[in-house]
Amino acid sequence: MQDKTYKLIELVGVSATSMEDAIQNAIGRANQTLKNLDWFELVEARGLIQDGKVGQYQVKLKVGFRLMG
Amino acid sequence: MQDKTYKLIELVGVSATSMEDAIQNAIGRANQTLKNLDWFELVEARGLIQDGKVGQYQVKLKVGFRLMG
Amino acid sequence: MQDKTYKLIELVGVSATSMEDAIQNAIGRANQTLKNLDWFELVEARGLIQDGKVGQYQVKLKVGFRLMG
Amino acid sequence: MQDKTYKLIELVGVSATSMEDAIQNAIGRANQTLKNLDWFELVEARGLIQDGKVGQYQVKLKVGFRLMG
Amino acid sequence: MQDKTYKLIELVGVSATSMEDAIQNAIGRANQTLKNLDWFELVEARGLIQDGKVGQYQVKLKVGFRLMG
Amino acid sequence: MQDKTYKLIELVGVSATSMEDAIQNAIGRANQTLKNLDWFELVEARGLIQDGKVGQYQVKLKVGFRLMG
Amino acid sequence: MQDKTYKLIELVGVSATSMEDAIQNAIGRANQTLKNLDWFELVEARGLIQDGKVGQYQVKLKVGFRLMG
Amino acid sequence: MQDKTYKLIELVGVSATSMEDAIQNAIGRANQTLKNLDWFELVEARGLIQDGKVGQYQVKLKVGFRLMG
Amino acid sequence: MQDKTYKLIELVGVSATSMEDAIQNAIGRANQTLKNLDWFELVEARGLIQDGKVGQYQVKLKVGFRLMG
Amino acid sequence: MQDKTYKLIELVGVSATSMEDAIQNAIGRANQTLKNLDWFELVEARGLIQDGKVGQYQVKLKVGFRLMG
Amino acid sequence: MQDKTYKLIELVGVSATSMEDAIQNAIGRANQTLKNLDWFELVEARGLIQDGKVGQYQVKLKVGFRLMG
Amino acid sequence: MQDKTYKLIELVGVSATSMEDAIQNAIGRANQTLKNLDWFELVEARGLIQDGKVGQYQVKLKVGFRLMG
Repeated sequence: MQDKTYKLIELVGVSATSMEDAIQNAIGRANQTLKNLDWFELVEARGLIQDGKVGQYQVKLKVGFRLMG
Repeated sequence: MQDKTYKLIELVGVSATSMEDAIQNAIGRANQTLKNLDWFELVEARGLIQDGKVGQYQVKLKVGFRLMG
Repeated sequence: MQDKTYKLIELVGVSATSMEDAIQNAIGRANQTLKNLDWFELVEARGLIQDGKVGQYQVKLKVGFRLMG
Repeated sequence: MQDKTYKLIELVGVSATSMEDAIQNAIGRANQTLKNLDWFELVEARGLIQDGKVGQYQVKLKVGFRLMG
Repeated sequence: MQDKTYKLIELVGVSATSMEDAIQNAIGRANQTLKNLDWFELVEARGLIQDGKVGQYQVKLKVGFRLMG
Repeated sequence: MQDKTYKLIELVGVSATSMEDAIQNAIGRANQTLKNLDWFELVEARGLIQDGKVGQYQVKLKVGFRLMG
Repeated sequence: MQDKTYKLIELVGVSATSMEDAIQNAIGRANQTLKNLDWFELVEARGLIQDGKVGQYQVKLKVGFRLMG
Repeated sequence: MQDKTYKLIELVGVSATSMEDAIQNAIGRANQTLKNLDWFELVEARGLIQDGKVGQYQVKLKVGFRLMG
Repeated sequence: MQDKTYKLIELVGVSATSMEDAIQNAIGRANQTLKNLDWFELVEARGLIQDGKVGQYQVKLKVGFRLMG
Repeated sequence: MQDKTYKLIELVGVSATSMEDAIQNAIGRANQTLKNLDWFELVEARGLIQDGKVGQYQVKLKVGFRLMG
Repeated sequence: MQDKTYKLIELVGVSATSMEDAIQNAIGRANQTLKNLDWFELVEARGLIQDGKVGQYQVKLKVGFRLMG
Repeated sequence: MQDKTYKLIELVGVSATSMEDAIQNAIGRANQTLKNLDWFELVEARGLIQDGKVGQYQVKLKVGFRLMG
């Protein structure tokens, strides 16, 4: 079983600025506790409205990383 | 029946700049006639091509707001 | 059969910057060999992670163009 | 915010004749109260059976129109 | 348990003429052996091409009918 | 065009008790301003968690009603 | 070929009370004519509205059972 | 109505060996009681785990056959 | 590798008359440049509204054909 | 990166009584080891049949919670 | 625009043996006329039944390759 | 709360040989750190192409296991 195996976790990142920033925030947070982060898949995008404007982007994403040894 | 009820409407916002700007435009327009806008859900993203470049982003989104009374 | 017919091709564009830039890159590349590019539809968004940050956005999109004569 | 915004409403049109006729009926009805009808998207098709024959086609469609000023 | 129960079966009807005719054919055939046919739901539409023309429409549909007693 | 046309609106009903109660609440609220409510379709179910228990069920549903005249 | 094979049928159960009751009704009816009922999968939930209240829950479900011999 | 009509049934086949074998088992079983089996469509694949290994593949498939007469 | 391989292309056909006519138009156009057209799959149906009527049906379809030798 | 990030885990809760009870059971179990449980999303509902009755409801749900600093 | 762009084409490969063999056949055929084949995505699996056995596996897949310069 | 609760994790297993082998590899790896592995659900299948052949099968699957006490 020398073949690699990967795990995916599902996160929701938020940002007041953009969907890209929300993705970055979730990945940055995951990087604090997980190594080998490899790829992400965007699952869903939504957000909050405040005073008639987008107040917060919320992106649901899956983050894949290699399971070690 | 003191529980809240929310309604969702479906809009298409457009922008020459970005998907975020197209979302903002649709929400800004909805805000002219509706109060209590609360959240949005991105349903679809597409756009027009002009001269080999993106000419217009078109985002379909659902906008949720609380029904009063 | 004077009615128009359109063809859709599926592309993946990449960018280190944003999803919009990845869309633009794919459309710019298609424009090198195809005329009459008309619209695009976003199919999927994902990306690569490098050093705990988004290293590359990858957007899968369909690009529609009119078939001539 | 000079960019256009569009709204989509969801209708079910019926007809004893064909799916196209059911689509036309729903759009004709919407046209009584809404201006600027622009496009439609077919969502679902079903129908009733009477005496072993299709008695009624029922098409669910979204109808898009531009929100004015 | 006096409440009604319905069963759905899945059929593919074919026709050289139209999707509506293909639907009618499948329902007409089902009516030979089943009573109480009540409604149908269109699941999928496809077909065969012969000599550069549609040779046969194939519609997959679910047909619902009440289970007696 | 004597054929009937139906409109669907999308609502989110909430309840601390059950999904059925959340459905009822949304329909009861719609009934305050709309006549001829005819059927509903469950689109999505989710909810809030408070103190390790379901604090609120949130059901998204479509409500169909006949357009008069 | 000693391996087991299972068949799924699709039913719609109804109830004035709850979705669970509608599920039970469909399964109870299937049990009158089929043996070895094993599991169910909820496919869709909808219902009728009467006098501004849910008049009938309608659940579409698949019921799986083992094929003998 | 000389056009053909086809019926689809849904089965789950199992095998300890492979998904192909599970498909074959379901089709072989269906062939005991049905004639004219024509095509299958893979709907879902899952399985059981025993002692840290796949113990059983379970494939859900639709099997189509022509209705006679 | 004597086994056949098929390719699918995605087209949008249009017609002022019916969805069947829009399908035929797309297939007729494809037949001008491709041989061995074999089957089609309906992917999506939409259209334009003009003066409160369907002005144009737009059907998105996949067209399959055998790749020669 | 002061923005919040949320994680979703996927659970299956079971209950002999109702879907709501199965949801509650899964959330109660998750609450034993996780803090800050925030919301849930219903993914799938199925169950076991015993003696011609629902023996067990099985609900698959995603549970979201905030990742701490 | 030094970023890479990829194109996806959709194929159906067939085999009497296995789904893997059907995938290989389609990729082998694509490799005769296209360079830089990079990845594939399985879209659909179905097949033909002959004499109560799987006569042919048919896998629909997307094949991605890099567009040069 | 004596009812059981199950958790699902999402993995990607790879293999140069077959989809079954890729499933086995992912499950074998999960078995190194998790007990009570119970079932899996196939979510997606894709792969890499090398020298015009499948170089690696990649299967995304969910693995379910019982949460202890």
